[in-house]
Amino acid sequence: MKPKNDMKNSYPGSEKIYVPGKLYNIQVGMRKVNLTDTVKIIDGKRITRHNDPVYIYDTSGAYTDPKIEIDLEKGLPRLRESWITGRNDVERLSEITSQYGRSRTADKSLDPIRFKNVQLPYRAKKGKEITQMYYAKKGIITPEMEYVAIRENLQNEMLGIKSHITPEFVRDEVAAGRAIIPANINHPEAEPMIIGRNFLVKLNTNIGNSALSSGIEEEVDKALWSCRWGGDTLMDLSTGDNIHETREWIIRNCPVPMGTVPIYQALEKVNGKAEGLTWEIYKDTLIEQCEQGVDYFTIHAGVLKAHAELVGERLTGIVSRGGSIMTKWCISHNQENFLYTHFDEICEIVKQYDVALSLGDGMRPGSIHDANDRSQFLELDVLGELTQKAWAHNVQVIIEGPGHVPMQKIRENMDKQLTSCHEAPFYTLGPLTTDIAPGYDHITSAIGAAMIAWYGTAMICYVTPKEHLGLPNREDVRNGVIAYKIAAHAADIAKGHPGAQVRDDALSKARFEFRWKDQFNLSLDPERALEYYKEGSKNDGEYCTMCGPNFCAMRISQNLNDCTK
Amino acid sequence: MKPKNDMKNSYPGSEKIYVPGKLYNIQVGMRKVNLTDTVKIIDGKRITRHNDPVYIYDTSGAYTDPKIEIDLEKGLPRLRESWITGRNDVERLSEITSQYGRSRTADKSLDPIRFKNVQLPYRAKKGKEITQMYYAKKGIITPEMEYVAIRENLQNEMLGIKSHITPEFVRDEVAAGRAIIPANINHPEAEPMIIGRNFLVKLNTNIGNSALSSGIEEEVDKALWSCRWGGDTLMDLSTGDNIHETREWIIRNCPVPMGTVPIYQALEKVNGKAEGLTWEIYKDTLIEQCEQGVDYFTIHAGVLKAHAELVGERLTGIVSRGGSIMTKWCISHNQENFLYTHFDEICEIVKQYDVALSLGDGMRPGSIHDANDRSQFLELDVLGELTQKAWAHNVQVIIEGPGHVPMQKIRENMDKQLTSCHEAPFYTLGPLTTDIAPGYDHITSAIGAAMIAWYGTAMICYVTPKEHLGLPNREDVRNGVIAYKIAAHAADIAKGHPGAQVRDDALSKARFEFRWKDQFNLSLDPERALEYYKEGSKNDGEYCTMCGPNFCAMRISQNLNDCTK
Repeated sequence: MKPKNDMKNSYPGSEKIYVPGKLYNIQVGMRKVNLTDTVKIIDGKRITRHNDPVYIYDTSGAYTDPKIEIDLEKGLPRLRESWITGRNDVERLSEITSQYGRSRTADKSLDPIRFKNVQLPYRAKKGKEITQMYYAKKGIITPEMEYVAIRENLQNEMLGIKSHITPEFVRDEVAAGRAIIPANINHPEAEPMIIGRNFLVKLNTNIGNSALSSGIEEEVDKALWSCRWGGDTLMDLSTGDNIHETREWIIRNCPVPMGTVPIYQALEKVNGKAEGLTWEIYKDTLIEQCEQGVDYFTIHAGVLKAHAELVGERLTGIVSRGGSIMTKWCISHNQENFLYTHFDEICEIVKQYDVALSLGDGMRPGSIHDANDRSQFLELDVLGELTQKAWAHNVQVIIEGPGHVPMQKIRENMDKQLTSCHEAPFYTLGPLTTDIAPGYDHITSAIGAAMIAWYGTAMICYVTPKEHLGLPNREDVRNGVIAYKIAAHAADIAKGHPGAQVRDDALSKARFEFRWKDQFNLSLDPERALEYYKEGSKNDGEYCTMCGPNFCAMRISQNLNDCTK
Repeated sequence: MKPKNDMKNSYPGSEKIYVPGKLYNIQVGMRKVNLTDTVKIIDGKRITRHNDPVYIYDTSGAYTDPKIEIDLEKGLPRLRESWITGRNDVERLSEITSQYGRSRTADKSLDPIRFKNVQLPYRAKKGKEITQMYYAKKGIITPEMEYVAIRENLQNEMLGIKSHITPEFVRDEVAAGRAIIPANINHPEAEPMIIGRNFLVKLNTNIGNSALSSGIEEEVDKALWSCRWGGDTLMDLSTGDNIHETREWIIRNCPVPMGTVPIYQALEKVNGKAEGLTWEIYKDTLIEQCEQGVDYFTIHAGVLKAHAELVGERLTGIVSRGGSIMTKWCISHNQENFLYTHFDEICEIVKQYDVALSLGDGMRPGSIHDANDRSQFLELDVLGELTQKAWAHNVQVIIEGPGHVPMQKIRENMDKQLTSCHEAPFYTLGPLTTDIAPGYDHITSAIGAAMIAWYGTAMICYVTPKEHLGLPNREDVRNGVIAYKIAAHAADIAKGHPGAQVRDDALSKARFEFRWKDQFNLSLDPERALEYYKEGSKNDGEYCTMCGPNFCAMRISQNLNDCTK
C-alpha cells in the first residue's frame, strides 16, 4: 500500500531541510520555500535583487521528503525510539497487556486487514516516571523539548528575530502545565510538537469512520492528507468496524500526535448500549490504546450526575457524544460518572506511557443559545479540579472547549477557562459564531476559532463544511484544514508571535512584484491558488482577469515607484 | 431574455409575503419560512406542537414572487416611482443630459445589445432639495424611511420583541448622517434599504466585467444571483466594453441599490491613460450615471497629491484602483486631485438625483504590513473633512475602509473612522486578517468582516475565493455572499441586534428535533446543506453519516429528556 501520489509530492518551490539540535543529536524537519529574484528595469538596466527563502513549520513528516521511501505497510521511521530507550526508564513488554488487544491479535480472520509490522509496546519501568511533565518539573530538558523549541523558532533564528522560545522556556511551560508535548512512548514515529498559548497556535483534525461508511485505506489516506495541509494533531474518532485495526494503521503512518476518545470504542464493545459500559471494559480499552501509541485521550470525566438535570434548560441538550453517553450511564445506574470516580486510576495508567489527557467538555453548547450557560461553566470547574489531580501524577492535560459561542461571549469563555483550569491549555472546537450556516460551518467556526485563539486558546479543532450533515471526505478535510490554518495564523499574528508575519510579508512582496509563482508557493494552498489563477488567465503577465491590464492598481503603483526613484 | 431557472424558484419551504405600511400605502416584501410541527411520542401517544414561522429579511426582490412575471427586457416594476413623483419636487427631463449618454443612444450599432425599455430620467426641480437626508433633517418621514423600518423590524414585530427601530428612529439616524438610504430617483425599481451601524449589518457584492472577460448576460445573471443569496447592495465595477449598456441592463433589473466607481468608466473614455482624465469627462460621466439610476458613487477624493510620497513607505503601494489612478494623475499633472478640488460641484450634481457618496479609500492597505499606516489614516482625516462638506449639501455619505488588517489592529481602524468621519457609516472590504491564503480570501476576510462589523461597521463588502487571482464566476459569487452573510449575521448577534438570534434558535431547535428539512430551509444555503446531507445519507432518520445511529449525541440527549419527563 502506497500513499496516493498527491501526498508524496513536495510542495511546489519547496524543499525539505533538517535543522540539527545543539543539545541533542536530533534533526528537525522543516520546509524551505525558495524564492525567485526581484527583477526591475530601471533606466533600461535590468537590476535583480535576491529574496531570502522563507522557512515554514511543516507537519507533513517524511511524506514530503523525496529521499525517504514510504511504505504504508511498514510504517514511518521510528524517529524517537532511541531517545525513549536512551532514558533507561522504559521496558519493552513481552506481550500486550489488554485482553481485547490480545483477542484481536489472536483472531486469524482479521489477518487480511491487519497492519503486519506491529512491534511490542513499551511501558515505564516499575517505579519510574516518564512523562514530559515529570522531566520538566525535574529540570530536565528532553530531546522532545529541544525539538519543539527549534521547530517553533526556526524562522526567527534564520532571520535573526529575537524570540522567547528556547528549550529552557519550553521546559518551564511544560513544568507549569501551560503547555504539553503529547508524546506516547509507543508512537515514536511522531515528530514532537507543543500545545500551549505561548507557542504557535495548533490545529487538530478529526477523521474516523462511522458505522455507515469508510474503510481503513480511506481513513489512513485522510490522516496523511490532513497532515499534508497542515494538521498539527489528528483525532481518530472511528465508531464503526475494526476500530483497533484502523487505529494501528493510522498510528504507524502518522507523523503527528494522535488522539482518540476511548469511550467510543468501549461503547462499540458493549454493542452501543451506554448502560452496558463498565470501568473494567473502559480500563482495558485505555491500556489497549496506550500500548498502540495513542498520544492523548479525550476523557469526559467532568460530566457529573448532578449536572444532568441542568440539561433541561438547554435548547439543544447535550451534543458531545461522550457527554451524552456518560450522562445516560449516570442516569441509568443512578451512580456518579465512573470516569470521575476512577480518575486517579486513569492517571496511573496513562502516566506509564506518557499519554496526555484532553479533558472533554461533555456539556459544550450545541447552539449559540446554550453558550456560556450553567452546564458548561459548572463542568469547567470540575475540569479544573481534575487538572490538578492529573498534574499531581505529572500527567499532561489540555481542556476541551466549545462548540457554538456568539462572538460577544468568546472572551468570557476563554477567561473563565484560564482561571477555572489553572492555565492548562485550552483546545476548542471552533467555536461557531452562528447556527444558521450548515454547509459552511468551517467558516462560521473559523471566525470564532481565530478570535478565541487570539485570546489564548492553544489548539483549535477544525470543523469541515460537512459538520452537522455527514462525514467529511477528502476535499472537506482540505477545506477544513485550510480554514483553520487561516484562523491559527491570523491569531499568531494578532498575538504578536515573533516571526509570524514573515510569510505574509514575503507573499505580499511577491504579489506586489508580480512574482506569481512565489506568491502561490508561499500560500497555504499553492495548488488551489494556481488553479484559480489559471482558470481566468491566458497570460502570464502583470495582471489577472480581475482588473485587466489598465486597471491593475499594483501595476500603476509600481510604475509610480519607478517614476519617483 | 429570462432569468435562469435557479433564480426564479422560491426558497424551499418559504413564501413571499408583503407587510403594509401604516404611514404610507407601501408593501414591504419579506420571506416567511414555514416550519413543520414538533412531533413527540410520549407514553405511546403522539404529541404535536406548532412551531412559529420565521420571517427573514429578503433581498431577492420580485424574483422569488411566483405571482410576478419577470421579463429582463422590460425590467422590474417601478416600485418607488409614485412615491418620488408624489413629492412634486422632481421633473422628468425631455432628453438625457450627458454628452456621452446621448452619443451612445444615437449609436445604432449598439442596438443589438441595448436595453430597449429605457425611460427618460428624473431630476430635482430647480431650487428643490430631494435627498433622504434633506427630508430627514426637515423632520419628514418618507415612504422609504417607513419601508426600511418595517423591513429591519418585521421579525421582532411578529414575535412581540421590543426594538428601537421605528420610522422616527430611521429619520433621526439619516438626519444625523449615521445612516443612509441609497435611493436614486432614477432607480425606482430598488427596494429601499438602510446602511448604518444601528441597523442590521449589510453586505455589498461586486460584479462587473473586465477587458478580459464577461458579457452583459453573464453580468446581469451574477447581479441577480448575488441578490438571491443575500447581497444588500451591488457594485458594478465593469471596466471592459459597453459599460454604459451593461449598467442599464443591471439597474433596470436590480432590486437592490447599485453603486459604481465612475472613474473606471471615465478612464475607459480616455483609453486607459490616467493622465488623460479631465474634470469635464468625469463630470459628464457622473451625470450619465446619475440619470441611469446609480444609487451611490465611490469617489476617491481623499487621495491627495501630498500623500503620494508616503506610498514609498509601503510594502504593497496602492492597491485601490481608483487610488492608483488619481495618484498617477496628480503626479503627472503636478496638480491636486480634481475630485478633491471639485468636490462641491460633485455634491451639487449628485444631490439633484439623491445619489449617495461612498468616499473611497485610495490608500487602503493591500497587505497586513501596511495596515493602519500614515497613508491610510491621513486619508481618513480628509474623508472626514469631505463628509462634512457633503452633509452641508444634504448629500448622504458612507466611508470606505480596508482592506488587509490583522485582528489586533481592527478595533483601532474602526474607532479612528468613527472619530475622523463624524460617525458616517463605515463600509469595509473584509478586512483580510492574513495575506497567506489566496484562493480562500473569502475566509481570511470573513473573520475580519465579522469583527469589524461587530465593532461598528455598517456594511461589509464581500470578497470571493477568486480575490487576487481572477474575476469571480457564479459559484464564487455564491460562496462570497454566504461567507459574508455569516459575518454580518454573527455581528448582528454580537451587537445584540433585537431579534437577530430568532433564526439561529429556530434552526437549532429543528436540528435537535431532527426536523432536517426545517433545519435546511432556515439555513443560509438550503440547497448546499441538502446536497451535503444527501451525499452521505441513504436514510431519512434520526442521524447522519457523521456519527451513525449509536453515536448521535442529540438522539441520546433527546431520549434523556424523555426519560426525565
